[in-house]
Amino acid sequence: MLSVCATPIGNLEDVTLRVLRELGEADLVLCEDTRRTKILLERHGIDSKLLSYHEHNEAERTAQILPRLIGGERVALTSDAGLPGVSDPGARLIAAALEAASR
Amino acid sequence: MLSVCATPIGNLEDVTLRVLRELGEADLVLCEDTRRTKILLERHGIDSKLLSYHEHNEAERTAQILPRLIGGERVALTSDAGLPGVSDPGARLIAAALEAASR
Repeated sequence: MLSVCATPIGNLEDVTLRVLRELGEADLVLCEDTRRTKILLERHGIDSKLLSYHEHNEAERTAQILPRLIGGERVALTSDAGLPGVSDPGARLIAAALEAASR
Repeated sequence: MLSVCATPIGNLEDVTLRVLRELGEADLVLCEDTRRTKILLERHGIDSKLLSYHEHNEAERTAQILPRLIGGERVALTSDAGLPGVSDPGARLIAAALEAASR
């Protein structure tokens, strides 16, 4: 399961209960910038494992992460701020996960 | 202070921490449908006072509410689901509040 998580733009309270639950339950949180996402998670008492996922490693990371998703791990995808895949990295992993799910 | 609050479309967890805080701190919560908003508030343990605000009474309500806003009360505006003023009632009150604030 891949959760695409919208994160705050400017105010750390601008995050939904569902996103916080998904981030807390994830086996792995993919971050455009782990430092930025760490601030959000620490603010809300979440200590899930973080891994970078950005424009310079998204092809490599997608290849690493896809087997874990298929194996049943829960992965949350975040960007610095806003919704991953809109104008941030993430589209590649989302497309790969959708393709794997439709097989 | 008028808070324009985006509320869940389909999943009661799809609400931000900031919206829940604003709803809880409001002297009055304006609702497109008080029954719908009551479900959301009860789910999150909020018992603020509710008042209907919809397409059939928005002119009258705006005239009632504006003096209270000017007097310093905190009012939260919600619609059935989503963001008030986008395709729901609310634009009139938002415009009146902005005009009053700019005077």
